[in-house]
Amino acid sequence: MRLVSYALDGRTGLALRTTGGLRDLGPRRLEDILATGPGALAALAGVDGPILDAAAVAYRPVLARPGKILCIGLNYVDHAAESPYLKVPDYPAVFPRFSSSLIGHGAPIIRPTVSHDLDFEGEVAVIIGRTGRHIAKADALAHVAGYSIFNDASIRDYQFKSAQWTVGKNFDATGPFGPDFVTAEELPPGAHGLRIETRLNGAVVQSASTADMCFDVATLVSVVSEVMTLEAGDVIMTGTPAGVGFARKPPLYMRDGDVCEVEVEGLGVLRNPVRDEVASLDAAAA
Amino acid sequence: MRLVSYALDGRTGLALRTTGGLRDLGPRRLEDILATGPGALAALAGVDGPILDAAAVAYRPVLARPGKILCIGLNYVDHAAESPYLKVPDYPAVFPRFSSSLIGHGAPIIRPTVSHDLDFEGEVAVIIGRTGRHIAKADALAHVAGYSIFNDASIRDYQFKSAQWTVGKNFDATGPFGPDFVTAEELPPGAHGLRIETRLNGAVVQSASTADMCFDVATLVSVVSEVMTLEAGDVIMTGTPAGVGFARKPPLYMRDGDVCEVEVEGLGVLRNPVRDEVASLDAAAA
Repeated sequence: MRLVSYALDGRTGLALRTTGGLRDLGPRRLEDILATGPGALAALAGVDGPILDAAAVAYRPVLARPGKILCIGLNYVDHAAESPYLKVPDYPAVFPRFSSSLIGHGAPIIRPTVSHDLDFEGEVAVIIGRTGRHIAKADALAHVAGYSIFNDASIRDYQFKSAQWTVGKNFDATGPFGPDFVTAEELPPGAHGLRIETRLNGAVVQSASTADMCFDVATLVSVVSEVMTLEAGDVIMTGTPAGVGFARKPPLYMRDGDVCEVEVEGLGVLRNPVRDEVASLDAAAA
Repeated sequence: MRLVSYALDGRTGLALRTTGGLRDLGPRRLEDILATGPGALAALAGVDGPILDAAAVAYRPVLARPGKILCIGLNYVDHAAESPYLKVPDYPAVFPRFSSSLIGHGAPIIRPTVSHDLDFEGEVAVIIGRTGRHIAKADALAHVAGYSIFNDASIRDYQFKSAQWTVGKNFDATGPFGPDFVTAEELPPGAHGLRIETRLNGAVVQSASTADMCFDVATLVSVVSEVMTLEAGDVIMTGTPAGVGFARKPPLYMRDGDVCEVEVEGLGVLRNPVRDEVASLDAAAA
């Protein structure tokens, strides 16, 4: 099953992607459905509704207000090697995203006025469907409701202004999340072995397999849940492979007018234009 | 005005602290009141209700589900000096708390099974009341609805397992937050110059003035809002002064049976016992 969180004519809702188009499921929130339990998710397949005008739909983040978003740093061997940290971690580096930074598929990534070091990071998002603590690795995938795509767009100079990466990872409108929530049974266990590719203006800038993660999905769920309760609706962003802009010589940063795409096999394509903060403000005022 | 989030007889609600006791304001959430705007907060003073049985009330975190909780690291000169980082930062170190780690006044801080390096950190919490981005320092305090007390209890070995502190700061039941939400007009501007003291089993372990913050409240609001929208109901934890347990020789960690108190002049006393995770599970099963 593939679900889309949308806005249309001033209202928001959830839709089911079908071969005939986006079938409207009404003013539901994926957050609430996940909190209700696996039955509520499965029941959506049987909900009838009109097909939405795909051209008029604005995609929202798959989850607009997750309980928590845990991002994993340096989780691909080749990306760890290109980073300032150089070596593969022996424990996951976990940093936060807050919902104030999220945008949907198609919405502009905003390059802020205070920095132009705006980088791309294609990632697989894991959405928790069953609450748990101290989850054994063998049980971990039973806690995953599904997957989506994330672009962990980063303001690099702000990321390294202190030892903690939080601010560089949380500029407004730098977290594209979508387009679809894809339930776990549509993918290989743990979303393992999927092709992941990031393209900037059509040129491939990242290309890898999710099989190259240092800590796979089951390990991440288990390790994180040793520390904190993972609640239904929480999200784990699984890290990005090599090829990011700031590791290049010269660096390759995103600019107003660019288009960034993240494609993951079986999940779809997350596509976002880039706009300068000032340009956007001008547009809003126009 | 001083507000308390409580649980009583299986229901939750908000209460006003009066000279006559805790006046029940019914099943309201401070999150919703802050989102509605300053008028909604002021209107609570006029709500009538019965006085609650103080002995039967369980304190909940002042806000159980804030939009985001931004914790500031190394924000007192003397604490920065005792830390592994040694020097005073030139930009705030920001790390997250997630709501899954929060507890109320009186609830046990849980020492986990996987580590016994459980440390205390008394702090002042800033609660945002007016949403904004790019907030000038001169306007910053107008965005603050009020203050509370936080104990940023930390699992030190997990904090330093990677470069990012997130996991060591987010064990379940390690974030006491309360007891009261105190509106800003009851305190000096920016909660400046208040005595802050942490006591472990009655012995003073931290004692400082909020005047010693490296980045004061107005600066923090302004600097953070350069990056992200601060929304009504968001929280900034302003960091802890010197005296934490892991900087001592030998280290002083909290253990089952301990009682930790954080007192801030004008805000009150946040008191929590410490319990081992296993003991708590035993208690829950009993």
